[in-house]
Amino acid sequence: MEKQKPTLYTCLSPSLLHLYDVSPAVVVIIDILRATSTIATALHNGAKAIIPVDSVAECIRIGKQIEAITAGERDGKIAEGLEYGNSPFEYPPAFIEGKTLVLTTTNGTKLLHMALDKGAEHIITGAFANLDAVCDHLLAADKPVILACAAWKDRVNIEDTLFAGAVIHAIKSHFNINCDASQLAETMYMDAKDDLYEFMKLKQASHYIRLTSFGLEADIRHCLTSNTAPVMPLYENGKLIKSII
Amino acid sequence: MEKQKPTLYTCLSPSLLHLYDVSPAVVVIIDILRATSTIATALHNGAKAIIPVDSVAECIRIGKQIEAITAGERDGKIAEGLEYGNSPFEYPPAFIEGKTLVLTTTNGTKLLHMALDKGAEHIITGAFANLDAVCDHLLAADKPVILACAAWKDRVNIEDTLFAGAVIHAIKSHFNINCDASQLAETMYMDAKDDLYEFMKLKQASHYIRLTSFGLEADIRHCLTSNTAPVMPLYENGKLIKSII
Repeated sequence: MEKQKPTLYTCLSPSLLHLYDVSPAVVVIIDILRATSTIATALHNGAKAIIPVDSVAECIRIGKQIEAITAGERDGKIAEGLEYGNSPFEYPPAFIEGKTLVLTTTNGTKLLHMALDKGAEHIITGAFANLDAVCDHLLAADKPVILACAAWKDRVNIEDTLFAGAVIHAIKSHFNINCDASQLAETMYMDAKDDLYEFMKLKQASHYIRLTSFGLEADIRHCLTSNTAPVMPLYENGKLIKSII
Repeated sequence: MEKQKPTLYTCLSPSLLHLYDVSPAVVVIIDILRATSTIATALHNGAKAIIPVDSVAECIRIGKQIEAITAGERDGKIAEGLEYGNSPFEYPPAFIEGKTLVLTTTNGTKLLHMALDKGAEHIITGAFANLDAVCDHLLAADKPVILACAAWKDRVNIEDTLFAGAVIHAIKSHFNINCDASQLAETMYMDAKDDLYEFMKLKQASHYIRLTSFGLEADIRHCLTSNTAPVMPLYENGKLIKSII
């Protein structure tokens, strides 16, 4: 008898996370603009670890305690009291190598903690920046998968859905997918894949509008580019570190 | 100065309804397979009114009280204790004309009551069966619109999303749409519109699988066909009735 394939589900918003059983699964936290893109970039550029925290206050407290860099945004801008923001361009090797980053963001770090609270034991982060590394990890893990989109304040967004679609398109033959949200995500990705940036612009994605109003077109382009930071961020003992698989 | 266009949002699951301000809006309850398709069909075929209720017990109680037909399903089958199910084919004119139907369904009637509890004052139901009538009503109302998908036990589904996309495609130039879920819905509808049934089959939509396992392909085909029941079901004083606009 052929071995049963593991299941794969896409959760389009943190408000839907309660519908899925995260405990036996690999949970992929997806926050393309820009938390999980920046996490991949910082780790790829040599960061020792990234500590995702819920609140700005905790970010400041832990930053002082362990003498780490504090970074984060609220509503797309550097949060008051923190040193750095949420742009992958802020973390070149010369700056980040060997350092620890304490990071808080509007959506991505919050979702990670929701997954933890729900009993998730295997959490990674995914972005176009590390698309292939994520897919390789999911295939090697051979466990159920939850693609968990951080969305924007719980509203479904295009870019996280597109990334879910890209992962599904790459690995679907290895999973049992009875999930309309996954079909939706892959359908949209197939429409968009020839030029993700143009798709975001054409559809006037809400985050496209928000970030371009801050002059951050280059961030959007970078965060939609595949495999610029081929690392696999794995959550372990309160930190995101580079996984060897 | 040009008049500001009203907003339009798509809510892909009842679990996301809290994100939207329903009180000033026209809320369109969408449950293509099959509650809102059946509501349109029954009203078009002469039903006097449809009373949507939350529970099977209430359905039985009200049915006795007013000597109405009791109908409804749980998990796609006629619920125990009720007389009829949730198929549009069960309500031809010869049977339903002049009668009142008390209806309870897994997703659609529940969502309608959620919207009421949240303060919605203008609720209609939409389905492919009455697509053009719904669009005409939304254009005439000139108010904000929430396209509220009933989904399946809070999981996003393809068919309700497709209907939201069809409405958006028809009326988008009259609304201000800053909503990624709406873009997603319209994108998917554009991919699917040449043959909605084939799209559902190709994508192995979860409800396609569920209903075909009960031999209900004809129901699916019928519920995906446009304008078979050109009426506008409006919720008023606890009942869905035929609206004249």
